[in-house]
Amino acid sequence: MPPVTQLYLEDLSVGQVFGSGSLRVEENEIKAFASKFDPQPFHLDSDAARGTFFRELVASGWHTAAITMRLLVESEFKPVGGIVGAGSDELRWPRAVRPDDELRVEGEVLEVRPSKSRPKQGLIKMRVTTLNQNREAVQTMIANLVVPRRQSSQ
Amino acid sequence: MPPVTQLYLEDLSVGQVFGSGSLRVEENEIKAFASKFDPQPFHLDSDAARGTFFRELVASGWHTAAITMRLLVESEFKPVGGIVGAGSDELRWPRAVRPDDELRVEGEVLEVRPSKSRPKQGLIKMRVTTLNQNREAVQTMIANLVVPRRQSSQ
Repeated sequence: MPPVTQLYLEDLSVGQVFGSGSLRVEENEIKAFASKFDPQPFHLDSDAARGTFFRELVASGWHTAAITMRLLVESEFKPVGGIVGAGSDELRWPRAVRPDDELRVEGEVLEVRPSKSRPKQGLIKMRVTTLNQNREAVQTMIANLVVPRRQSSQ
Repeated sequence: MPPVTQLYLEDLSVGQVFGSGSLRVEENEIKAFASKFDPQPFHLDSDAARGTFFRELVASGWHTAAITMRLLVESEFKPVGGIVGAGSDELRWPRAVRPDDELRVEGEVLEVRPSKSRPKQGLIKMRVTTLNQNREAVQTMIANLVVPRRQSSQ
């Protein structure tokens, strides 16, 4: 693997792909996240989950989103100044995350443009796909990220 | 306040507004969430944050999203079977969340429609706005939610 390079806007181009390591989602982590942020039966208890929409214990979509961020922060994608999100479009959870799923993330650059109002920075759109151990997408989104431009001495 | 009513799709209509209680965001919670899911200096350490884009310690946007879900689950909005999200559009963080901010959520129904493929359920779009103690939006999104229909014996 090449050494980590801190990326400026000028280093990014449409079609570049960044990968991540993987992270196993433990059942107790699913329950701990849910009890704090999404306390609903299908995220808290396997028995109670049976009578619900999901029919089994699944992770909160916001837990999947949070794990995705963790994987992205530790991925090959290293913009200067860190990963600064302005938001995301089309966030979807096409498949549930279950205990012991092993997740990883792929990011693909869709758009790169300088900011009109702030000359020292730019914006990129990145399709961020979170996959389980069967290469099935459990989350997709288009992330809008702020990335510094190289010429910053003005 | 009226007693809690479990809502079916037929009980929902465009323009309805649902409010939540409020939740104070503690500095140690910001750091704990970040160390688990978004370990970047501006979410972890006040001193390190000074030299960054944000110039001060702020909550991860995904922490704000998770808190929003917690507030929504405990809000007046009680669909039958729980709050089941298919995803969200136009998730934005227009303003950072700082230690001791007090957040609450407002949900406004934008669209209500039966599912074409699944006759027992429908889909709604809800604008979910997360406000701080100064009534400033810290997060906006359009949530896509699955809600059961009343006629389910077929």
